[in-house]
This record gives sequence, C-alpha cells and structure tokens, in this order.
Amino acid sequence: METTLTLTGANLIAGKPSSQGQGSVQGVDPRNGTRLEPTYSEATAAEVRAAVAQASQAFRANRNRSPEEWATLLETIATEIESLGDTLVERVMAETGLPEGRVRGERGRTMGQLRLFASVVRTGDWVDARIETALPDRAPIPRPDIRSMLRPTGPVAVFGASNFPLAFSVAGGDTASALAAGCPVVCKAHPAHPGTSELVATAINRAVETGGFHPGTFSLVHGGGAEVGMALVRDSGITAVGFTGSLGAGRAIYDAAAARPIPIPVYAEMGSVNPVFVLPNALATRAEAIGKGLVGSVTLGSGQFCTNPGLVFAVDGPGLNEFAAALEEAVAACPVQQMLHKGIADGYDEGVANALATEGVTTLAAGVTAGGDGASSGAVAVPRVLQTDAGVFRKQPGLNQEIFGPATLLVVCRDVEEMTELAAGLEGSLTGTVHFDAGDLDAASSLFDAVEGVVGRVISNGFPTGVEVCHAMHHGGPYPSTTAPSTTSVGTRAILRFARPVCYQDHPSELLPSALRDENPLGILRMVDGSLTRDALS
Amino acid sequence: METTLTLTGANLIAGKPSSQGQGSVQGVDPRNGTRLEPTYSEATAAEVRAAVAQASQAFRANRNRSPEEWATLLETIATEIESLGDTLVERVMAETGLPEGRVRGERGRTMGQLRLFASVVRTGDWVDARIETALPDRAPIPRPDIRSMLRPTGPVAVFGASNFPLAFSVAGGDTASALAAGCPVVCKAHPAHPGTSELVATAINRAVETGGFHPGTFSLVHGGGAEVGMALVRDSGITAVGFTGSLGAGRAIYDAAAARPIPIPVYAEMGSVNPVFVLPNALATRAEAIGKGLVGSVTLGSGQFCTNPGLVFAVDGPGLNEFAAALEEAVAACPVQQMLHKGIADGYDEGVANALATEGVTTLAAGVTAGGDGASSGAVAVPRVLQTDAGVFRKQPGLNQEIFGPATLLVVCRDVEEMTELAAGLEGSLTGTVHFDAGDLDAASSLFDAVEGVVGRVISNGFPTGVEVCHAMHHGGPYPSTTAPSTTSVGTRAILRFARPVCYQDHPSELLPSALRDENPLGILRMVDGSLTRDALS
Repeated sequence: METTLTLTGANLIAGKPSSQGQGSVQGVDPRNGTRLEPTYSEATAAEVRAAVAQASQAFRANRNRSPEEWATLLETIATEIESLGDTLVERVMAETGLPEGRVRGERGRTMGQLRLFASVVRTGDWVDARIETALPDRAPIPRPDIRSMLRPTGPVAVFGASNFPLAFSVAGGDTASALAAGCPVVCKAHPAHPGTSELVATAINRAVETGGFHPGTFSLVHGGGAEVGMALVRDSGITAVGFTGSLGAGRAIYDAAAARPIPIPVYAEMGSVNPVFVLPNALATRAEAIGKGLVGSVTLGSGQFCTNPGLVFAVDGPGLNEFAAALEEAVAACPVQQMLHKGIADGYDEGVANALATEGVTTLAAGVTAGGDGASSGAVAVPRVLQTDAGVFRKQPGLNQEIFGPATLLVVCRDVEEMTELAAGLEGSLTGTVHFDAGDLDAASSLFDAVEGVVGRVISNGFPTGVEVCHAMHHGGPYPSTTAPSTTSVGTRAILRFARPVCYQDHPSELLPSALRDENPLGILRMVDGSLTRDALS
Repeated sequence: METTLTLTGANLIAGKPSSQGQGSVQGVDPRNGTRLEPTYSEATAAEVRAAVAQASQAFRANRNRSPEEWATLLETIATEIESLGDTLVERVMAETGLPEGRVRGERGRTMGQLRLFASVVRTGDWVDARIETALPDRAPIPRPDIRSMLRPTGPVAVFGASNFPLAFSVAGGDTASALAAGCPVVCKAHPAHPGTSELVATAINRAVETGGFHPGTFSLVHGGGAEVGMALVRDSGITAVGFTGSLGAGRAIYDAAAARPIPIPVYAEMGSVNPVFVLPNALATRAEAIGKGLVGSVTLGSGQFCTNPGLVFAVDGPGLNEFAAALEEAVAACPVQQMLHKGIADGYDEGVANALATEGVTTLAAGVTAGGDGASSGAVAVPRVLQTDAGVFRKQPGLNQEIFGPATLLVVCRDVEEMTELAAGLEGSLTGTVHFDAGDLDAASSLFDAVEGVVGRVISNGFPTGVEVCHAMHHGGPYPSTTAPSTTSVGTRAILRFARPVCYQDHPSELLPSALRDENPLGILRMVDGSLTRDALS
C-alpha cells in the first residue's frame, strides 16, 4: 500500500506543520540543477524552542512506556517508511542524484536498523541492570539494597547527513538509537534533501500517533545555514547531539555544546582518511586484485562514504608496478561520478588541487573527464589516484586530510618499518585496512598494533566501505574521525550514547522500573550480587 | 610487615625521583598549622611531558599483558599500601586532620576498590565482547567476520582529591579503574597531602616493578596551582581525565580538555547539594528520627563529602516543628568540626555568610562555636542548619549552590506539589533522598520522577553519605555534579570510562585479543550472533 503525500514545506513541530519563518531552503536536483518544490521555511528561534519544549514534555509523558511499546514504535516507523513507496524513492533520487538501486538498498538498511534496535529494546539486556541485595546484618554498617540500570537522558538533537539521506538522516541510526533508549528526538533536516526529510518525518509522526506516544516524541526543523542547528544544540532542554558530516561543522557543534552553561555530549562522526596498508607478500602475489578492489572501494557511491579509503600505503618492491598499473587501468575506466550536490563536487576539486599543489605529489591515474549526466549542473567529479612517497607524506600534514569524493593517495614506503611509523602517526580514522599474506604475518603484528591505535575498526584483506549493521560493528574512531571514540554511530552499541545509569537505593518495589523488580518480569540478564543471571530474586 | 620510607619531596616519573623545579608544595597539619617536611618540588613542563611520554611507552609495552597480570597488579598495589602501615596512617592524619578511624576505614575502602577491580578484570566480562560470524554465502553481499570489544584508550590523567586522600587520590577509584582498563596513569597529587601521595605512589611503583610492567605505567607529579594540572590535561598523549574536586577547578579542566586540538573526555565529579525531601506522613510520624539522622549525615566527616545533604525540603504541617526542634537539638550538641585545611574552612564560612545575606534566610541552629583542637590554625567549622521557605528559594538561584562543609538549608514548602516543582528545577546532584511512609506513596511517585530527573542516585528513607563500592553503585549525576552523567566514579562501571570499542573484521585468529578468539580461552560472556554465551565458537 502506498501513501500519497503533498509536501508542505513546513517544519513539523510535535507532528504539526509550522512555518513562522521565511522560506529559504530548497532541494536541487544535482543531475540537472533543477530547483525542487516546495521551498522550506527555516525554523525560527521560537520554533526550535517549541520543538525542544515539546520533546521535554514527551520525555516526561513517555517515561513509563514499556520496552514492548518502544520496540513497536520503531517497527511501525519502518513500516510507515516502506508505505511511502516510490514517492520516497523518487524524491531521494531527485534531491541527491543517488541511483535507484542505492536508494532502495539504503531504505532497506534504514528499516533494518530500526528493526534491529526494536529487537535490542525488546530483549532488554542493554540496560545493564545491576542489583546488590541488602545485607542488614553486615558490620560495621549494614548494606542497603542498591539497584541501577541505564535510563534515557532526555531530548536528543539529530543532524541529518548529506551522504546518507535515509540511513543517517531523519529516521537513521541516530534517531533509531535515541528512540530505542527512550529519548525524544528533534531532527535538523539536511538542507540538501528537505523533501526526503519531510516524507520520513511524516512516517515517524504517524508511528508516534499510532503508538499513542506524546507528539513531541519527534519533531523536524529546517535550516539552510548554521543558525537553526546551533540554536538546537544550545537549547537547555537538549541532552545529547548526534551528528554525521564534515569536520568543520562537527567541531563547531562540539565547541558550542562544550561551551554551554550545562555542557552536553556531542556524538559527531566526521569522516576520515581510512588508510589501507599493503604488505610486501600480498603486494607480490595479489597486486592486481588489490588494486582493482581498491578502486572499486574508492569510487563506490562516488567516494561519498565516511569509510572511503583516502590513503594507500605500499612498500616499494615486487608487485608495486603491477599495483600501480592495476590502479591506473581501473581508474581510467571509471566514468565521471555524479555527486550529491555542487558544493561537494567543488570541495572535491579543491581538495585534489591542494594535494597536487604539494611538491612531490603527482597524478598516477584519472578517470574519464568528459560526459556525465550531471555535467550541466557541475555536480560531478573525476576519480583520481594521486601518488607520493613516505618522505613527502611525513613532511606534509595536509596530505593526512580527507578529500571527500572518489580520490585516494598512494604513499610508497621504503619498508614495513617506515610504513608502521607512518601508521602510528596518522590522525584518527574510522577504519584501517591491512592486506597481507601468511608470509607478512610477523611484520603485520606491529603494523596491526599501530593501526589499531589510530582507528576504530581494523579490516584484514578487505575494503573499508560497506559497514555491516550488527551487534559487533564499531563505527567510531579517534578524533578527528569522531568527537567521542568510545561510542559508535552504527551497530547496537549506539543506543548507549543516549542513556545514563540511575541508581535506586532501598527504593519501594512498586516504584522500581520493571527491569529492576525482584521478579524480573522482563526476563533480562542482570548482575545480582556480582553474578549474571536471568533468574528472579529469591 | 611494615616498610620504612624516607619521603623525598620529588616527583616520581616512571618510578624515578625527579626534582627539576622549585620546591614550593608543602603539607600543613590543619590541627595546629605546623608545616610538614619535606617541601615538594613542583613538576616542570618538561617533567610533565616526560611522565606522559613514559605513559605512552608503557601503554604500548603493556599492550599484550593478560587480564590475570593486570588483576595481580591491582592486588599487589593493595598489599603494598597495607605494607606502608602506620607510616601512611600517621601521614594522612597529619596532612588532613582526619581522625584515625576514618583514615583506617578509608584505607580499607581503597584496598577493597583495588581488589574489586581486580575481580572485574579477572572475570573479564566487562570488555563487552561481540562476534558476528562470517556468512560467505549471504546475498547480495557476504557478511565478513566481525568481532569487537572494549580496549584501553591510553594514558589517563588523575587528579587527587582533597577530601579523600586515599580512596579518591593517588591509588583511588580513578587510578584503580584506569589501570583495570589497561591504561597507564599520570597522577597529579593534591597539594594538601603531598606526603601521603608520595607514600602511595611508592606502593604503586613497587607493584608495577614486581609485576614486570613498564615503569611508565604510573607517575606522580606535584603542583601547587593550576599550572601543572593544566599542562597534564593539555598534553597530547593524555586520552582521558579523572577528577574529583570543586566545580570551578573541574569546569576549568573540562574547558581546557574541550579546547584541545584533539578534545578528550573529562570525568569530573564536582560535588553537589544532594537534596533531601521529607514527605508529610513521614514528617508526622518520624520527625525526630529523620532530623537526628540528617544532622548525623550533614556533620559526617565534618560535612566534607560529595554526598553531603545541603538542602532539605519539608512540607509545612504536622511534625515540622518537631523536625526543626530535632535539628536544633542535634546541631547544638555538635562540637566545632576539624576541616581538611584552612582554605576549606574559609570557603565554608563564606558560603554560610552568603546564604545568610539573602533576605529570608535565617539560622535555625548552630553547633558549639568555641574550642576545637584545630582552632589555632583556623581550619575549623561550626555546623549550621539554615532555614528559608519555597518562595525565597525559588527566587534565589544562589541557594542551590553547594556549601562544602557541615551545613544544610531547610526549605519549608506549602505542599507536596510545590516541593515537586522545586525538585524538578534543581541543579544536577549526585544523590536525591526521599523520606516517606506508606501514606505518602501516591504523592511520592511524581516526586520520585522529578528527583530522578536531576540526580544519579535516588535514596529512600536513608541518607546520602556512605557510598557503597559495588557493581550496582552509581556515583555520578547531571551537571554540575559531574561533567559526564553517563559515567560513574564509584562502582565497577567506572572502568568503562577508560575504554573504547575496537572492531576487528576478518582478523587473523592468531593476532586477535584472547577475548575474541574462537575457543574463548578466558571463558567470558560474549554476544555471538546476537546471543549471549560463554561457549567457544563451534
């Protein structure tokens, strides 16, 4: 069943359209430069305040909702998104230039995430329930009854990302994990896909209504510049921020949150260079396959993934020429890439130009430079492999910076020691990849240690693009890849960002959250007097 | 067996005495104002850098130490502290004025914490190991093998607290939990008890040596002002900060850490007002007992606990006069209180004077104002109960601020609704306490909700002082009681502050941490394909 929807161009405050501000945000089809109707009204300061106030009310009103109700809410959101059908798919394609297959795939991932978090909430173990029973006869002082568990922090601000209009936007991983924790969400739509954002917000609002949740459980606000987002981050009712985007914007949000009278955590995932290391034996035996696979990873999604491999380290020796030749051949065959919008395409060109302006950096290979459906709008990029050596790289910290788009820089090292030294000195990344064969293992050990020190996920003989959504995934890493390396924005640990322990000492049983009651009505795993058990207290 | 030790007055950098700076930190016996030998050399910038550089080396060198080795290290530290015997007890008493029983009790608690964290490390479940096995035949794309677990973040800076010279200082909860996570520690000694700090540091250094750990695993630096601590926080090798102390110092450290090129988390526990709410039925039936117990909690340890109850809300009605009379009687019997040092005593007097300068705030009762062993040094305080009403309290945000010492402010409310409204508007606290009887339960429900919103631990019919060290304890709360309400500084969850998830994708088995190997050699609880199990992978 598909729903027909007329886009309103309004903010959606607690489910109600609101357009007090001037209209100034508008989607643009990057495939042809066409401006897309409607024009979206930027949220005013009063609208932002109203959205947060509604979220605070919702937080109190939703307080005693059961895990089952929250799980059902998440599942209903998934179903409602599906019900948007081709209306949603077409709007995403128009606002982002992403091909249909990718959009349908990302929609599936978004629904999968919502359902995965529903299962986490329903299982219930995530609350880390702990009980120490009373010891009234202990000397010199009795031990009281002490119970604690994770509880939601309160309203969360979520920023939609440009590169994942569904999976990291309005109903993406941040929203899913915040709702799963029991936190209301005020989402700032990404200005590049306001129509997509409105469609998904209506799906969430329907699910909120169906579940009987307070309407302030979800609001959507629009804004073209930094102002609306900053007003949201600075609002005293917001308790945490989820963000995926650029280092500049992420750091600005982090700084604003840290400067508040009451500082709050910012979970900003800001992309990274995702270094790849090719060890000598792997290079000697598999140069062509690694080179080809690498170009596939660099150009996947036009290189617009946070895990795009932007640096490749290889040791000079057998296989290096074949590796370079494979990169050249694969890149040369790549057509012009459609980018999400002209701003990203321009930023990519600038990043490539800056790297090439560095003495000792050259172009090893470039893709086809002409054609492309989106050429008329300027939102296109030419894939490139640049090349330099370890000496140049060591002296030029600028080469350690992400170029968002389909480019990578090959850094030729003298030996594995030099490669390991460079690895240890890299800025933080979401991922680090090592290609090795059995004969490389001794050398790989210290390289793996160095790589682990600067990344959140270590990949063996693979490529970093493609982030599995599962319990064990970690999508986070040392700064500047994120502002909070001990948290993840993908995988079920993401729920932990929006909770805090609360401890109840000698609390009356009838007022305890069900997770902590003697009879363990939810059947969750609990630590009772130091031992893990699903049993009721005897 | 007891150890004789000559205090050196030096910093201890990776186990070696170092005194490059000027001597300027000296303990003072607050009982008589005597300056205590030796004078301690303030760490220079170079010494701070050296300590952190050694910690970074230790972090790499200790990387493959087993959980058993870390557990033994923690236990050996406990034993070495015990071996310091009366030398330590006497030095603590001289530097802090704390009575012998309290010092011995705190020493026991410190050793207990170290042993509790040893048990957590040995059990090993805390690393949150998760495995998703490979699905090579999955369509459209295979699933790789994905494993993740918590790993130590790196060198941690720990600030010793004035009010717990053992349990929250050199080998206190922050150090114990950081080492338990596998992180080296650089500790900034509190300038009020440098000799105590040196003694405990030598105990840690001996344990580090006995265990064969890298000497940079622990260093101690001294500093009288903010400079040494700030240099430590700003050092690029430090990955997290543990702090217990004042709001001013904690916020300054938080701000400095947030302003770093690479920001790091600051786990600052900054004390709080710890409100107590007395509901009408409890007041009518138990006014005297609650009043007496409250004064005991307010004056415990001369009121120098983070959980000292600084605000008491009671409803005007039956029992209020008896409650006030009980407070008066109990306080009037209190002798002059020995404080940790003159600065704290002066700050206390200033806080009391500021509160009393507020129109509508009066003194309900004061303790004995003359005598006291420490009177000659000025490091004494007179216990006080101040009084006001809800109307005054609502208009004077200053009354919401902690007065560190043996004082509390009774706020008389019209009814439970007014009390609940005030509760919801309070600043964040570590604890909130509710006294109620069966007849209060209906009214207590919304009050409990309001209290939970602003505290980390809710206590029923008890008092907030006395923080049980156990798995379920949470000693943290919304700002300004801490800078990180989702973490705790007491209880075994404290270890989580110093770890981050690391994910291994298709990692070679022989290079995996033992916690993630197929055979589960540590026998820990792991989430395998979504289910918790201690089984090996089949």
